[in-house]
Amino acid sequence: MKLLIKIAYDGTDYCGWQFQPNVRTVQAQVTAAAKKIFGFDCDVTGCSRTDSGVHAKGFHATVTQKGKDNIECSIPLEKLPKAFNAHLPDDIAVLGARYVSDEFHARYSVVSKKYIYKMHIGCERSPFDRHGALHITSKFVEDYLDRMNDAAAHFVGTHDFTSFMAQGSKIEDATRTVLNASVTVSPNDPDILLFEVEADGFLYNMVRIMVGTLLEVAEGKLSTDGIDGIIAAKDRKKAGRTVPPHGLYLECVNYPDNI
Amino acid sequence: MKLLIKIAYDGTDYCGWQFQPNVRTVQAQVTAAAKKIFGFDCDVTGCSRTDSGVHAKGFHATVTQKGKDNIECSIPLEKLPKAFNAHLPDDIAVLGARYVSDEFHARYSVVSKKYIYKMHIGCERSPFDRHGALHITSKFVEDYLDRMNDAAAHFVGTHDFTSFMAQGSKIEDATRTVLNASVTVSPNDPDILLFEVEADGFLYNMVRIMVGTLLEVAEGKLSTDGIDGIIAAKDRKKAGRTVPPHGLYLECVNYPDNI
Repeated sequence: MKLLIKIAYDGTDYCGWQFQPNVRTVQAQVTAAAKKIFGFDCDVTGCSRTDSGVHAKGFHATVTQKGKDNIECSIPLEKLPKAFNAHLPDDIAVLGARYVSDEFHARYSVVSKKYIYKMHIGCERSPFDRHGALHITSKFVEDYLDRMNDAAAHFVGTHDFTSFMAQGSKIEDATRTVLNASVTVSPNDPDILLFEVEADGFLYNMVRIMVGTLLEVAEGKLSTDGIDGIIAAKDRKKAGRTVPPHGLYLECVNYPDNI
Repeated sequence: MKLLIKIAYDGTDYCGWQFQPNVRTVQAQVTAAAKKIFGFDCDVTGCSRTDSGVHAKGFHATVTQKGKDNIECSIPLEKLPKAFNAHLPDDIAVLGARYVSDEFHARYSVVSKKYIYKMHIGCERSPFDRHGALHITSKFVEDYLDRMNDAAAHFVGTHDFTSFMAQGSKIEDATRTVLNASVTVSPNDPDILLFEVEADGFLYNMVRIMVGTLLEVAEGKLSTDGIDGIIAAKDRKKAGRTVPPHGLYLECVNYPDNI
């Protein structure tokens, strides 16, 4: 059996999930914590590579003994989150743990992932959202929320999303299926907008380019059905700007029910 | 005329509002920013002294030329927040500015203040609330929300709140009028509880001792009407623990309408 853990992290002080030499990464922290708990080296395999500054509320990763497809663990499952959290910095927390089969893969077994991008609309910046939401001061047209939602609906479906992929990405097939995409106002803060998008997979910078494009719709620079033309063009230059990483959250990851 | 500014700050990295030598305070930052904007020394007088680690969403302070009851300002009022924010660190922001009479006092003119204390109920800690909510893992009785609300209602009214004041405080009259006190679940997060309290004034640590006492009610250690006996005792030892500062927010300050 592999161990599957659910992780939340504030990505502000990390160069993303993926291990890289000489920089602080979430994967390195979790791998070090696993070694302290189990007493042997572990492989920690994540569901995704989040970028520098991106946050996660429902990241998933498998933990196995280094070089093996499984792990032997004498600690009761329900005690594992606390054991991890005792060895992790306070901007990373393990929220749950369960066993999955040796065949399970944290990344390749993913059915869908949901991201949320948080925007703070206001004249002045907010001290509380400085690491967690994009501050927007640009003028929006009156019906911007309806417009953003209409535009977001055009993302839904199976499309080649080359226009919404960072230039230089080495991806052979940029076809992805977007299951849901919508923009809502936060229920406890009228100044916070949330873009929520679920897909079977995401290209590099895809959500951040989608948001940059929706902002052009909100500003009245792009029509709501202009999204279709941008998708059809398969040209990164046709889409909007890439918004910064600090508003982005990996909200949840869905795996098959039978794992 | 005095200048009245509305300020929000994340208090995590500050030793409170009030200027003290050799430590980082919000008042020192705002005073330094005012000097840069106006070109002369200013007095910045706050509505309250928030403790180390306490946050504010609606703090108010007057700005006057040093030693005077007024200020001469050639910058248009609507441009002042941006002018301040250009000189303030990103955990402090000025949200608004207006003129008030020379007789106005940021602290003594206050009609009422509202504080919110934020609690995160969950088995594991949250990386996102680590500086902004108290993490609670203790077992609560089933109807804890109703119980906390019933108990909070007993705070409302004019009482001598000596039992809810830090020991050693030098206050002659501990009588305060609590206008509202309630506990609600955050509309966008079922794991977040919010204690909201409005009063004509607060004693040192009053909100934090109220919350510590309400937690005893939630844990079933104290009955909901036990609050009356604690108030009547005028004895700090009868009330609950003082919870930490990082869950506390000065939400808003009310001044008379005619200022």
